[in-house]
Amino acid sequence: MIQRTKLLGSIAATGKRSLSASSRWAEIRDIAELPHRTSPRYQDSKNGDFLTLQWPSRPQNILLTKKNKTPAITESLIEFAKHIHSEYEPINMIVEHHVAKEVHESLPFPVYTTAAPKDKSMPILHDKVDLVSTLGGDGTILHASALFATTKHVPPIISFSMGTLGFLGQWKFEEYKRAFREAYVSGAEVSHGRPALGDVAAPESAETETSDSQSWSSIRGKLMGSNHRARVLLRNRLKVGIFDANGQRLTDDAGTPSQEHGDVYAMNEVIMHRGANPHLTIIKVLINGHFLTEAVADGMIISTPTGSTAYSLSSGGSIVHPLVSSLLLTPICPRSLSFRPLVLPANAQITLRLSEMNRGKEVEVSVDGVRRNKGLGLGMEVRVSGESVRDRGGVWNGGVPSIVRGAAGSDVGGDDHWVGGLNGLLKYNYPFGEGA
Amino acid sequence: MIQRTKLLGSIAATGKRSLSASSRWAEIRDIAELPHRTSPRYQDSKNGDFLTLQWPSRPQNILLTKKNKTPAITESLIEFAKHIHSEYEPINMIVEHHVAKEVHESLPFPVYTTAAPKDKSMPILHDKVDLVSTLGGDGTILHASALFATTKHVPPIISFSMGTLGFLGQWKFEEYKRAFREAYVSGAEVSHGRPALGDVAAPESAETETSDSQSWSSIRGKLMGSNHRARVLLRNRLKVGIFDANGQRLTDDAGTPSQEHGDVYAMNEVIMHRGANPHLTIIKVLINGHFLTEAVADGMIISTPTGSTAYSLSSGGSIVHPLVSSLLLTPICPRSLSFRPLVLPANAQITLRLSEMNRGKEVEVSVDGVRRNKGLGLGMEVRVSGESVRDRGGVWNGGVPSIVRGAAGSDVGGDDHWVGGLNGLLKYNYPFGEGA
Amino acid sequence: MIQRTKLLGSIAATGKRSLSASSRWAEIRDIAELPHRTSPRYQDSKNGDFLTLQWPSRPQNILLTKKNKTPAITESLIEFAKHIHSEYEPINMIVEHHVAKEVHESLPFPVYTTAAPKDKSMPILHDKVDLVSTLGGDGTILHASALFATTKHVPPIISFSMGTLGFLGQWKFEEYKRAFREAYVSGAEVSHGRPALGDVAAPESAETETSDSQSWSSIRGKLMGSNHRARVLLRNRLKVGIFDANGQRLTDDAGTPSQEHGDVYAMNEVIMHRGANPHLTIIKVLINGHFLTEAVADGMIISTPTGSTAYSLSSGGSIVHPLVSSLLLTPICPRSLSFRPLVLPANAQITLRLSEMNRGKEVEVSVDGVRRNKGLGLGMEVRVSGESVRDRGGVWNGGVPSIVRGAAGSDVGGDDHWVGGLNGLLKYNYPFGEGA
Amino acid sequence: MIQRTKLLGSIAATGKRSLSASSRWAEIRDIAELPHRTSPRYQDSKNGDFLTLQWPSRPQNILLTKKNKTPAITESLIEFAKHIHSEYEPINMIVEHHVAKEVHESLPFPVYTTAAPKDKSMPILHDKVDLVSTLGGDGTILHASALFATTKHVPPIISFSMGTLGFLGQWKFEEYKRAFREAYVSGAEVSHGRPALGDVAAPESAETETSDSQSWSSIRGKLMGSNHRARVLLRNRLKVGIFDANGQRLTDDAGTPSQEHGDVYAMNEVIMHRGANPHLTIIKVLINGHFLTEAVADGMIISTPTGSTAYSLSSGGSIVHPLVSSLLLTPICPRSLSFRPLVLPANAQITLRLSEMNRGKEVEVSVDGVRRNKGLGLGMEVRVSGESVRDRGGVWNGGVPSIVRGAAGSDVGGDDHWVGGLNGLLKYNYPFGEGA
Repeated sequence: MIQRTKLLGSIAATGKRSLSASSRWAEIRDIAELPHRTSPRYQDSKNGDFLTLQWPSRPQNILLTKKNKTPAITESLIEFAKHIHSEYEPINMIVEHHVAKEVHESLPFPVYTTAAPKDKSMPILHDKVDLVSTLGGDGTILHASALFATTKHVPPIISFSMGTLGFLGQWKFEEYKRAFREAYVSGAEVSHGRPALGDVAAPESAETETSDSQSWSSIRGKLMGSNHRARVLLRNRLKVGIFDANGQRLTDDAGTPSQEHGDVYAMNEVIMHRGANPHLTIIKVLINGHFLTEAVADGMIISTPTGSTAYSLSSGGSIVHPLVSSLLLTPICPRSLSFRPLVLPANAQITLRLSEMNRGKEVEVSVDGVRRNKGLGLGMEVRVSGESVRDRGGVWNGGVPSIVRGAAGSDVGGDDHWVGGLNGLLKYNYPFGEGA
Repeated sequence: MIQRTKLLGSIAATGKRSLSASSRWAEIRDIAELPHRTSPRYQDSKNGDFLTLQWPSRPQNILLTKKNKTPAITESLIEFAKHIHSEYEPINMIVEHHVAKEVHESLPFPVYTTAAPKDKSMPILHDKVDLVSTLGGDGTILHASALFATTKHVPPIISFSMGTLGFLGQWKFEEYKRAFREAYVSGAEVSHGRPALGDVAAPESAETETSDSQSWSSIRGKLMGSNHRARVLLRNRLKVGIFDANGQRLTDDAGTPSQEHGDVYAMNEVIMHRGANPHLTIIKVLINGHFLTEAVADGMIISTPTGSTAYSLSSGGSIVHPLVSSLLLTPICPRSLSFRPLVLPANAQITLRLSEMNRGKEVEVSVDGVRRNKGLGLGMEVRVSGESVRDRGGVWNGGVPSIVRGAAGSDVGGDDHWVGGLNGLLKYNYPFGEGA
Repeated sequence: MIQRTKLLGSIAATGKRSLSASSRWAEIRDIAELPHRTSPRYQDSKNGDFLTLQWPSRPQNILLTKKNKTPAITESLIEFAKHIHSEYEPINMIVEHHVAKEVHESLPFPVYTTAAPKDKSMPILHDKVDLVSTLGGDGTILHASALFATTKHVPPIISFSMGTLGFLGQWKFEEYKRAFREAYVSGAEVSHGRPALGDVAAPESAETETSDSQSWSSIRGKLMGSNHRARVLLRNRLKVGIFDANGQRLTDDAGTPSQEHGDVYAMNEVIMHRGANPHLTIIKVLINGHFLTEAVADGMIISTPTGSTAYSLSSGGSIVHPLVSSLLLTPICPRSLSFRPLVLPANAQITLRLSEMNRGKEVEVSVDGVRRNKGLGLGMEVRVSGESVRDRGGVWNGGVPSIVRGAAGSDVGGDDHWVGGLNGLLKYNYPFGEGA
Repeated sequence: MIQRTKLLGSIAATGKRSLSASSRWAEIRDIAELPHRTSPRYQDSKNGDFLTLQWPSRPQNILLTKKNKTPAITESLIEFAKHIHSEYEPINMIVEHHVAKEVHESLPFPVYTTAAPKDKSMPILHDKVDLVSTLGGDGTILHASALFATTKHVPPIISFSMGTLGFLGQWKFEEYKRAFREAYVSGAEVSHGRPALGDVAAPESAETETSDSQSWSSIRGKLMGSNHRARVLLRNRLKVGIFDANGQRLTDDAGTPSQEHGDVYAMNEVIMHRGANPHLTIIKVLINGHFLTEAVADGMIISTPTGSTAYSLSSGGSIVHPLVSSLLLTPICPRSLSFRPLVLPANAQITLRLSEMNRGKEVEVSVDGVRRNKGLGLGMEVRVSGESVRDRGGVWNGGVPSIVRGAAGSDVGGDDHWVGGLNGLLKYNYPFGEGA
């Protein structure tokens, strides 16, 4: 059984790590040593808008990411890591390779990382990370999400902001102790140190096989009860494929999130843009295989609702709540008075195809702000549809699971973080003129 | 049993009608004489975007509505009614009272109507109408929908356009014979002259109790097989309630679609507007009970996706596909540079409350273009949420069931009517400047 | 000679007033007693953007207007009036009738006013007022301007804001002593107590006939020299005429700024709007007599650059600098994706004509926010063109002469007030998202 | 005298050309052989909006430009050139070098050109061309204008469209015979074969010294009288200078219209754009040396009114009539909800300066669609102001003199070409929805 092997592996790894942690300060270890990841489940909550997070057993491998080149945030990451280590041990801290070099000497325990190039390191992250924590702004969340751009199963992400709260449900860094605890123990039952009956896929095996390191009993004092489950917003992503004029999928070059045999996922948007080419691009837009329109423009954006407050907003798109299952089609500087942004069903298949009229010039493609090394040429196309986050059996699955601020049981409204982003971040609807 | 009584009543009525039709030309009869309505079911289709229409037995009572003051359309209505009468008899033709007076002398059979004022006539229409057919443009569909503004169970609507096709899935009038046949027999099975097993709620009783007039066998030659079921788009509506400063629901005055004990439904939008008042309105906007923003503006629009190509579009809103389950919040001429339209989840509860700063001036409220006789005063509010069109058991229920153009089995794309509306009606993305 | 008669009259009035001021506290007198107005000249300044104010003799009749229903502003007006009286006596204070009743008991000198209805009181104001001072916001300036809506010769206006500075060049109220002094003595020469040679039309007569009350010598200590002339922005207005279907000019009803034999002037905008009528208006737009377009919309705005930050901005218009000689044509909620605002030459003749397709409904017309009592019917039209502010001989003449903040010789940039309005008032270009 | 020398040279050249034309078919000659140019004057017309064209003597050197890679237009150019040659001989036809190679074998007379690189060929064109004629669309006019981007004295341009009429006052190609005649003889007087007294600078010398080739008498039959003077719109251009962080003007590399010692002129717009750089640019915007705002955006556009229907319109700018003396400041995809386009006075000095926050990335600068080879770096800036087209003495001078369609004496309205462009080209204000 896969499940069983994973758990045994976990015990072995933990034993080894505990030993070395005491013997060596500031070690950088290989992420490959870590046990396989533990995946949570997401359940409908009573008010229906958010899901609740349910861990089948204790998460062990935490990926910490942060905004770069900001010393204050690096300090905060160190403080945060020490706290987790001291309170939740045994637990494994994973960081990106450049972060490992930056912080390992400040930490009294090892950090795990991989030195592989990005395309090689992504699969192993997908295999190992139980939970992600970001320190920074919306851009840092976007970066963390991009590390999982080629898997359907993104670990839950809990985000902390150092300054203004962003749109994406960040917590204030001051709240990190309680917020992390809520995320970490979410769904754990006090009584038995194991998940409640019926909440996990195979409870009968979990009881006997859960290792000590994964048992809730060791941190019983931290459990918070079922009223304090972490609230999760499954952010729909885009599934993006790039194809040549013959319909063959293009494999990608380094530096761009991609995948040899499948789609790439985008949390914010896919953009086709003329780039340095002074000529307007001419892009045929198809919806479910049928011609919709031909854009003569600087470019086109296909965005998620999450991305509706990013580039799409700059280009005149509407602001779409993340719970509206949809795609946004927004032109960039169109040569038209009448090209209004469209909001389409999330399951629509949208194709952006380079028209034959483009004079052979290449067009840039960017996924979540990262430009593909090679532009697209004549007849090539980008195919996009919204990721489904609920499978046919009704199981929530896919998307970017964001642990948003405010407990399910609190009196903080479900849209609080989003409304706060509108008013705090966008200066939404600031009135002009003197008072009425 | 209600069902049984209805059918027997239907037979009696039919007998009487047949007799009088031969003896009297151009009779206007009371709609109360008609049998109770037959309600169809809606089933998921394979491609998932549209539903298919399934009649449990033959529909009998057809409401015909038309655009006013357009003689050519009146002629078409007469042609259409004669065709239905001759091909689908026994069948009962219902028209609005003013239409009855206009056309009854041109028809060799009776028409049914009610002379009651609008608020009194709505319940009986809800009771009697199996199927609605409209001749005109989008405005005529909106009018037909408004006749059912106080019931959750709107009959299916099949619409014909005399000129340009609109946004709402109209058929060309030239197609009326085939289109009506498809809508009328949708879901009927050839073999037994009755619905397929499992497709209706109580087949065992239907078999024995279906009267001749409701049996498919009499029109067996017209049946089209399961590949030709009519495609239905259940258009979400808004549920609208108006409340005074004490939270008491306001009952309505005549002339406005409303209801003593419940909400009114809107297919397009609800609007609060300063009207003739030269001062800007100040409207507090709450979402799920939490403050979102305070609009200082000419007014506010809450729109369905269907209404996104109506007033909301004039006010700068995005175009939202009717299958995106959502509400649009669009300000009208806001005193702000940064009040961008919002797209919110359909199940969001939106409150528009008149701020205390409005200087005591009243504000107009319109539902689907019909203005409420009395304006709203200080502290009054409009509460809006999207109508759910699928109940917890997964049954499709509610909305405006629009029979859209293009058969499920045809090669016409599911979004064809919508894309056609964009390109044909809106002159969407018309390019300017000379060719690239 | 008219000039001479006026001056003599002025002496008489002054004598009488001085007497009564000492004998009675808080008197309200008739504005008719005042001497005729003194009109300044406007001269090009070196930097070319602004004009400088040049009084031929001391101004005597000051109109003070204020925002209503704001006790703090009423207090400020009293403080301001007392200061002027004590420093610049002999000087006459004019207020509107309702203000006279509100403040006269708080002032140790008489105030002048007229109890006539608005249409009757406007000509006498035009005859008497040398200088206007407003306390309040942009709306108060608009109101003051409207008092001179039927004359080409608006007195210079100096405005004070009690809170945020507005768009229209207000001074801070704290600055009132220096600001008023600058405006009052602008152009006065120290040496002779009379205007510099060549600066006024007829210096030879002025020398002998200027009365004591008009001589600068009595306030020599307050003169500021030629570097401190007040800077004036002549705001272009619109000339507006309303005509019936036969081309006859409509005389106006009470309550609307109009004029029997000529045009009305608007500082901000003219609006045609559907008002309480739920149907869209259909308005033919002609430019210089040629068809431009047919608007199907809630309404149309023709705006000055000054009005470009008022209603036109709410409707999506561009922000136009007040020195750009132009008219803005901005639709209100047009039923079109492609009706972009236009900026037209100030000397264009624009006609808004009610189309025959309006179903007989009337349309509202408002000039600077004041609605005309009667709406326009079928075939009626509004004709608008920009006011010329420089006659053929190069003399600056017409417009609303706004004394804007910042001295000509100071290092405050000429566009400072406008740029300040953009950034302070409109929250112009407030960035969203986290730092780049 | 310069004038005299030029004329003598002209005679010599003409004699030589006539000879060789008969002996050799299809000769390409050096433009340097041609006589110096003849510059027209522009005079106010009665209606005040347009100017009239006044030649002091017959124009001799005609530059023909055309849209590339369009065989039908090349055919039309040959037809047009033959017509001019046969009707207006002696006259000299200048074409661009690549056009010379394309057409010279099809013409029974020589064409003049220069093989020098662009920056070298511009001064000689400025020296020789009397009149420009373009065949193509607005892009072709823009190209012709760019050939004169470094001189204040652009020759008059008459443009012919092969298809839809553009915004820039094109004539239909079918009208070319009459249109060219009108432009060619504009201002010539029938009686004496010389300009009317007072219309030219030095008539007394013109009488005796005008050579035969420049005398109107030889084409007396073609003269049209003073009612048929060509109407000219002097399109304001932008004066553009690029400076390094030390305030030193940057000289330009090849391929971009520039000038070693002065400004470049743009007919449409100057653009700063992030180009292929994925990061937003941060641009400080100063107006008359004072800070206006800091743009965080894809880029910024400064446009003329002529350019208001080009890129600025795609970016959301207003449409500004070419007679409104102004500059447009339009952001490209700004990261702000509240960055509305501005319309500024034509004499405003606008500076776009790269902020220090740009991370060292370069930003692209384009003038009239032509990208400068090198981007701008940190602290560099673009300084722009509107070109003055009337000097202090009231003489019209500068701008791009466009000979617009419609004779001064005709009943075609002065704005006809512009209104036609709006309605024909932009599909301006196309209504949506069904008829009212």
